[in-house]
Amino acid sequence: MERVIRINMDNLQAKMEDTPIEFARLGGRGLSSHIIQTEVPPTCHPLSKANKLIFAPGLLAGSIAPNSGRLSVGAKSPLTEGIKEANVGGTVGHKLGRLGIKALIVEGEPVEDRLYIIKLDKDGIVIIPCPELAGLGNYETTVKLLQAHGKKAGIICIGPAGEMRLAAASVAMTDPDGRPSRHAARGGLGAVMGAKKIKALVIDDGATQVRQAKEKTSFQEVCRAFTKDILEHKATGLFSKYGTVGGLSYLSKIGALPTRNFSAGSFEGNARIGGKGVAELNDTRGGSFGHICMPGCVVRCSNVMHDKDKKFLTAGFEYESSAMLGANLGIDDLDTVMHLEKMCDNLGLDTMEMGAALGVAGDAGVLTFGDGPGALKLLQEVSRGTVLGRVLGQGAAITARVFGLNRVPVVKGQAIPAHDPRKEIGTGIGYATNPQGADHTGVIIFHVENIAEMVETSRQKQINTCAYDSMGLCQMAEPTPEVMAKLANSFYGWNWSVEDVAALGQSVLEEELAFNRNAGLGPATDRLPDFFKDEALSPHKGTFDVGDEEISKVFNSPKI
Amino acid sequence: MERVIRINMDNLQAKMEDTPIEFARLGGRGLSSHIIQTEVPPTCHPLSKANKLIFAPGLLAGSIAPNSGRLSVGAKSPLTEGIKEANVGGTVGHKLGRLGIKALIVEGEPVEDRLYIIKLDKDGIVIIPCPELAGLGNYETTVKLLQAHGKKAGIICIGPAGEMRLAAASVAMTDPDGRPSRHAARGGLGAVMGAKKIKALVIDDGATQVRQAKEKTSFQEVCRAFTKDILEHKATGLFSKYGTVGGLSYLSKIGALPTRNFSAGSFEGNARIGGKGVAELNDTRGGSFGHICMPGCVVRCSNVMHDKDKKFLTAGFEYESSAMLGANLGIDDLDTVMHLEKMCDNLGLDTMEMGAALGVAGDAGVLTFGDGPGALKLLQEVSRGTVLGRVLGQGAAITARVFGLNRVPVVKGQAIPAHDPRKEIGTGIGYATNPQGADHTGVIIFHVENIAEMVETSRQKQINTCAYDSMGLCQMAEPTPEVMAKLANSFYGWNWSVEDVAALGQSVLEEELAFNRNAGLGPATDRLPDFFKDEALSPHKGTFDVGDEEISKVFNSPKI
Repeated sequence: MERVIRINMDNLQAKMEDTPIEFARLGGRGLSSHIIQTEVPPTCHPLSKANKLIFAPGLLAGSIAPNSGRLSVGAKSPLTEGIKEANVGGTVGHKLGRLGIKALIVEGEPVEDRLYIIKLDKDGIVIIPCPELAGLGNYETTVKLLQAHGKKAGIICIGPAGEMRLAAASVAMTDPDGRPSRHAARGGLGAVMGAKKIKALVIDDGATQVRQAKEKTSFQEVCRAFTKDILEHKATGLFSKYGTVGGLSYLSKIGALPTRNFSAGSFEGNARIGGKGVAELNDTRGGSFGHICMPGCVVRCSNVMHDKDKKFLTAGFEYESSAMLGANLGIDDLDTVMHLEKMCDNLGLDTMEMGAALGVAGDAGVLTFGDGPGALKLLQEVSRGTVLGRVLGQGAAITARVFGLNRVPVVKGQAIPAHDPRKEIGTGIGYATNPQGADHTGVIIFHVENIAEMVETSRQKQINTCAYDSMGLCQMAEPTPEVMAKLANSFYGWNWSVEDVAALGQSVLEEELAFNRNAGLGPATDRLPDFFKDEALSPHKGTFDVGDEEISKVFNSPKI
Repeated sequence: MERVIRINMDNLQAKMEDTPIEFARLGGRGLSSHIIQTEVPPTCHPLSKANKLIFAPGLLAGSIAPNSGRLSVGAKSPLTEGIKEANVGGTVGHKLGRLGIKALIVEGEPVEDRLYIIKLDKDGIVIIPCPELAGLGNYETTVKLLQAHGKKAGIICIGPAGEMRLAAASVAMTDPDGRPSRHAARGGLGAVMGAKKIKALVIDDGATQVRQAKEKTSFQEVCRAFTKDILEHKATGLFSKYGTVGGLSYLSKIGALPTRNFSAGSFEGNARIGGKGVAELNDTRGGSFGHICMPGCVVRCSNVMHDKDKKFLTAGFEYESSAMLGANLGIDDLDTVMHLEKMCDNLGLDTMEMGAALGVAGDAGVLTFGDGPGALKLLQEVSRGTVLGRVLGQGAAITARVFGLNRVPVVKGQAIPAHDPRKEIGTGIGYATNPQGADHTGVIIFHVENIAEMVETSRQKQINTCAYDSMGLCQMAEPTPEVMAKLANSFYGWNWSVEDVAALGQSVLEEELAFNRNAGLGPATDRLPDFFKDEALSPHKGTFDVGDEEISKVFNSPKI
């Protein structure tokens, strides 16, 4: 992985560069965040030509390491106005690794108002106008592109939401079945891609080979042990059996499941939209669990869902989507929830942001909680580009602003995902402090009672997450610093200690926090909305009662 | 002025308090900002019950001093998310002074979803439900309230925009003719009043007397000299002859007049919507110049405009309104511009924010520049509370966000008024640094060429503005520190030096900057949008070429 590609959309030129020495030990999130922090003016408008869109595979991309194909997509976020990396599965991460691409950096914006495809293979890069794809959904776009460029290519694309530059717009990736079911969903990176007028990137790794480790035998051994560890991990069993949605009823039971715009923590319809309901549907319709979102995955938490006619409807129907588009809207009809999720995938929208935005629309009286057809109609408004659709597609904060509401489940402008912080207090500390805004990755904390311990756990978890996001490893594999050091050392011939892995994670966080400070996101934005402190959550009557001083300790300790 | 009134909307109770000692030498902006800084949680949601709405007359309110009846309305702003004081004329400032009210502080929010009137007279305060006023415009509201409570009362009210909690919503005040033509327009304070469910305040000073100075003869002398100075000041002659709109053609000539969403600095239709056009209309229709917006005004820059049937249409048709609703929308039909202004007054909307929002709508393709009927229709959308209307009524930044545009003429979320900073560089430095966001008051600088000098001039001007905003003096009277010291000393028997006046202004700014820092508005928000640096302004091809380091000097000098 010796090359960096810079694509200048001002003049539609691409160039290959040798990897700068400072990039050598960076990958994935660490690299995308480093490029943003050093190259993007922190106060620029996220949709302006000054912003950059980064695609960086992890350090182990293209290798045989299990669960190592995650791709980091980064830019200044139109949603949070801070730094953003959205981490995603799919096939592209490994393909970029096999092509020897350390990072792909998109700069500038075209003079002409038309869309482009960027095609990358071992021969180089071409930038091609694609007016014929304007306005198409992700499913139709990928079908056309795979027909034109070969079924083995990996596709990165945006739907109409990204073209409209909506801040809930995702960047979609094809999964091993060639479906655009995996999304770099959070932070509105699809809008940045839309502002740069890129409809899709086609990544063809052709006849390239698996990347070889420097210490081949040792690397194989480490990978084998890591695989064994993942397979023996309890959650892996649950995930491969029910997907992530398998946890929904448990979250409802403990009262952490956002229900009707975060007005309750338990949803009476949880069984119908949770693991049980999804499993029953798969039994009768032929959908399935145990799929992979990227080659080399041994967790297998993805799934394929069929419709009433037993035909493919959607893939990667996750916990967050079912919770935010189901419970949070008071909708217990699984078919409706699946259709909402599919529409988001096709339009290129973050299901979490849209679930939260529609929840706010419920408080605004624009949607009645429990009205499935009403929710589907609202997503059609986005599809049609109506003003209401654009408002919703800008996310929960803008929806609340337009309708004059002050009860808004966001941190740094980004919707809080499906773990209510009044039950999961430690998770709430992570929502508040994570430089990415309220994310569902890297901050979830169960079973810690003491606030000081939560603060410490949140810091360590966020540091560790930055490390494995940089390696390209999936959080579901729960890689420890020990495993990461062994993988890096045997693959690259390095000599990383466990402390070096932590130092990597910490330096990534430091760069992200620095960018945010310069962009204007200071301590005042490290706060949960007041209603989590003021409104007790049924059924357990919990509130988020962590003081600002405790929150500020997460990144004010001597360790960071 | 010994009393402070606290109105608790939680339980609909009002109480009179003695003035705390620390309030004694504060008034107007100084007092409203002090109360916000010390009592409002800086990270609270502006529309939540934790926010407070302050009405504070100036130190000279109720006295015979010329141009001394300005009222400061303050709160955490729903538009900027920072501190806000909007300064306004009308009759209420003096009335509160005569009633001995130092400040009126509205706290909490009612349990029930219905609107209230607050009536204040010498006997005390009553809080009365007023469901019959819901949805009414400011004109109809004031007619009804003056009928019910006597023609001599002063009214503070909100229109439908405030009820909808739109961030461009103003707080209207009646002028000496009982018309709601004066607006505490900026920063969305009408939305805060709407969130507190207050439709109007009725202020009846009945048979109260002018407030007497401690050193009566000396005060009279100072007032006489100040009046003479104002009348001899050149701008006063222009203002009393043409109103503030008299300057429009000059601004167009030098290329500082925002035209078609800040895409040019000169407007070919300037004569029709400027002083000349307005004067011709007044000659033929019987409208007039030389009106006052508050008792005791000797500048007389207000006006009354008639419609085609020679009947009253609107009062207080100002430069900013004609520029932002005329030139900035490419509209040169004066009747249309006057009707747009009247609609804003009646709905309770800031004409500057709406002019900027409609300008952005022009870039979005929602409005065609120059299409007067189209612009009127868009304001009707606000009136009807459609989604598009609410988006526009949330201001320029939200309009741009919803339509995915990155060319947004705002600072700290608030629209830039009608002085393009690419021509008026010094004004731009004030837009960037003013804790209130881009305001048209207290930052306008012509005829300074050197950037270091602009920085110093801007700081001094902002400090001086804070001082006269605290005295309740109008900026059009251009009160100097010498005059202010003399007025304060003879009225209160104090012993202020010129330095004490500057120290007052400085301490007000310091409190506002402190609130903003705690609310999360740091140096990164002290920036003009990039397009003022990147796009040269016709006809003079100027850009705003002031570096961030220079800007940061305004409030980083040892003087503040």
